[in-house]
Amino acid sequence: MKNYTSINDIDNINNWIAEAKTLKESPLKDIELGKNKTLGLLFFNSSLRTRLSTQKAALNLGMNPIVMNVSGDAWGIEFGDGTVMNGNTAEHIKEAAAVVSQYCDIIAVRAFPSLTDKVKDESEYVLNAFKKHASVPVVNMESATGHPLQGLTDAITISEHAKTKKPKVVLSWAPHIKALPHAVANSFTQAMQKMDVEFVIANPEGYNLSPEITGDTPIIHDQNEAFKDADFVYVKNWSSYDDYGKVLNTDPNWMITKEKLGDAKFMHCLPVRRNLIVEDAVLDSDSSLVIEQANNRTYAAQLVLKKILKNL
Amino acid sequence: MKNYTSINDIDNINNWIAEAKTLKESPLKDIELGKNKTLGLLFFNSSLRTRLSTQKAALNLGMNPIVMNVSGDAWGIEFGDGTVMNGNTAEHIKEAAAVVSQYCDIIAVRAFPSLTDKVKDESEYVLNAFKKHASVPVVNMESATGHPLQGLTDAITISEHAKTKKPKVVLSWAPHIKALPHAVANSFTQAMQKMDVEFVIANPEGYNLSPEITGDTPIIHDQNEAFKDADFVYVKNWSSYDDYGKVLNTDPNWMITKEKLGDAKFMHCLPVRRNLIVEDAVLDSDSSLVIEQANNRTYAAQLVLKKILKNL
Amino acid sequence: MKNYTSINDIDNINNWIAEAKTLKESPLKDIELGKNKTLGLLFFNSSLRTRLSTQKAALNLGMNPIVMNVSGDAWGIEFGDGTVMNGNTAEHIKEAAAVVSQYCDIIAVRAFPSLTDKVKDESEYVLNAFKKHASVPVVNMESATGHPLQGLTDAITISEHAKTKKPKVVLSWAPHIKALPHAVANSFTQAMQKMDVEFVIANPEGYNLSPEITGDTPIIHDQNEAFKDADFVYVKNWSSYDDYGKVLNTDPNWMITKEKLGDAKFMHCLPVRRNLIVEDAVLDSDSSLVIEQANNRTYAAQLVLKKILKNL
Repeated sequence: MKNYTSINDIDNINNWIAEAKTLKESPLKDIELGKNKTLGLLFFNSSLRTRLSTQKAALNLGMNPIVMNVSGDAWGIEFGDGTVMNGNTAEHIKEAAAVVSQYCDIIAVRAFPSLTDKVKDESEYVLNAFKKHASVPVVNMESATGHPLQGLTDAITISEHAKTKKPKVVLSWAPHIKALPHAVANSFTQAMQKMDVEFVIANPEGYNLSPEITGDTPIIHDQNEAFKDADFVYVKNWSSYDDYGKVLNTDPNWMITKEKLGDAKFMHCLPVRRNLIVEDAVLDSDSSLVIEQANNRTYAAQLVLKKILKNL
Repeated sequence: MKNYTSINDIDNINNWIAEAKTLKESPLKDIELGKNKTLGLLFFNSSLRTRLSTQKAALNLGMNPIVMNVSGDAWGIEFGDGTVMNGNTAEHIKEAAAVVSQYCDIIAVRAFPSLTDKVKDESEYVLNAFKKHASVPVVNMESATGHPLQGLTDAITISEHAKTKKPKVVLSWAPHIKALPHAVANSFTQAMQKMDVEFVIANPEGYNLSPEITGDTPIIHDQNEAFKDADFVYVKNWSSYDDYGKVLNTDPNWMITKEKLGDAKFMHCLPVRRNLIVEDAVLDSDSSLVIEQANNRTYAAQLVLKKILKNL
Repeated sequence: MKNYTSINDIDNINNWIAEAKTLKESPLKDIELGKNKTLGLLFFNSSLRTRLSTQKAALNLGMNPIVMNVSGDAWGIEFGDGTVMNGNTAEHIKEAAAVVSQYCDIIAVRAFPSLTDKVKDESEYVLNAFKKHASVPVVNMESATGHPLQGLTDAITISEHAKTKKPKVVLSWAPHIKALPHAVANSFTQAMQKMDVEFVIANPEGYNLSPEITGDTPIIHDQNEAFKDADFVYVKNWSSYDDYGKVLNTDPNWMITKEKLGDAKFMHCLPVRRNLIVEDAVLDSDSSLVIEQANNRTYAAQLVLKKILKNL
């Protein structure tokens, strides 16, 4: 594997999950593998979990992580081809990506979508520019349309907590006041499609994810119906895909409650807004796996970095 | 010791001072102790000395420090219980503290007071939320009401420079144009109360610190009287405690001069505003211990981290 | 060598270039030299290459780099002598430099000029204050009037790519919309003056660099004439020196094109604005050495740090 930028880069998810569990048991066993190797973490957007867990993963592999907040620490990056750069951008991604490749053995990038220009967002122009112009491997720390480190994390967590051979997993939309990206929902959907689970998506009308992502996965507009006999309920808000980036619905009836959840486990990538997405009673109960998920972020990142390091 | 969040966490200050001096002589002797352990430094506010000295202390113990400016690098944290999070905060401290605990073996936090809401500030809601919701030890890098790494530093510095068995130490208020917290003055007072020194506080009327902190310590409103026969003059501005957070007095007669200081040593936690708090002639003379204090910040932090690491 | 703050700190540039090439061949051979030593990188201004390459250099030497964005992470620093600090600055450089020296074995500083006050900029008050008040060596990561890590980098790069014994090197001004500093052009000029090259400067009238820098170097106002038989064309915009900090000319005829460049190699310190400073066809061709230059930033910094470490 050279880059890890999509769930599609996982060749066999069951093998990956098994490897991640092994790493989790002895996180320091590969500490010589990344010695004197540098991981550059470039943030175009804010980050807590990804920032810390990816650094921790790098340290577990003996790597030196170097963090940069691109906008705050440096300057505006130009992505257009042939642009006359007489505006606000001071460096072209062609140079920036090649330059960072001189100092880092792996580059990890976070760049959120605009949510105003679907075509541009779906082109993944930031991530793809790094893939094209960097001379070293690139890891996606959440891009416009995917968050594959989170998707891998969630697959690991479900595998750890599954009590049946083929658990039922529901991805449920929940209300939010702001327009949020589709990245987490997309990567979770792709991960579940690769696993041996019964997977359905619950969202209001007007909130279907991209059909290229959902494929044959059943989409149910009645949350109660979807939750029936669920083992895992993975919750996330996203803005409308069809009416791109719009908040069409903030119906509080879609908030997750303990009553709705029943015996299912609750999952969320965090950060989560309490009593808007989900009531306190869920997060404060044993049904919640959110902290387990956060913990597994380290091992998902570590597995990805390990696979890349082995190929360097 | 699990957490270090107050001078009251010091069981025996003389033993701690002695241990710190030993560390200072051979700072790298415990470099194996923190190997593959991570210290998360979370800053809700600016920092120079604390930021650098605590990282240096961690490195001396072989730890990996990871720094985060919470507001700049991540997003608004919610501290309220039961809040419907439909405003500006995106993550609850319950999750944030538990999540950071997945990646860090010790969490150090800086969070200043509002100086507008005494009850809220004195509740130490940020620090206490970390203590409650983090699953790893918490270190106070200056909270609303205390700066115990500084207080320990100052105790070490006084012990190193004392020429008599029971030196006279004065904590003196000095003028400033902005409303400043009470944290440094509080922790210094608490540290001196634990040491074998003659300790008095000099401040204008209306500027007494919290009586819960000052206890039996004499408070003198005449600076000259207080400075008589002083061996150490520790200077700091703070805003009014009674008229909470207000600047009632900027009387330049309270500025520290070489003449006033006499043979006493001058101490200040820094940053210090020259010719407002203290005249150049003091800081530029051999009477000033401020750089010694800054140096001792490393060993105070290192001692605290060492004690916590030994208990992990 | 104690400090590295100017090209004039290089005693013998040919020896330095030879040493840097040796380092580049085995970058990790001195990894024990900087063990348990800390490099403080203080940024008063944005940085990409310098930030990453200097950290990488420190890591190659086994050092611990600690990065601080002075304005964002801490507070305003006062540089005036005798100032009554009742304004926006909260700490004097006398304390700040001495304090940072307690935690770092070497301090590296970036501080750009105002471009509004020539006398103040040329006094190099930030850099010189660090040299004066720090008790540890100081490295210039680009100051008001010089960028000697870049100048050394460029000398190494020219030496690597020279095909004749005494190549012709042209420093050419190119148009830009903003007022830019003279630091890179100054240090490049000083570096070339120390090397065995035929060196000329091409710039429009009104754009001569400081005569103290250019000395006997020919200055040609006709770009085509200057480029004749050039082996290396080093391009950089700078604002007027005589009419200090002003943008007098944005003539697109001074932009570098493939046609103008001919068989010469193109060099630029980056970031570079495409199709304003230089057309795409140059940067996207084999004539461009800009990524080589970026790579050599690591070895220039590593050589400087190594020389300083050896003298500690």
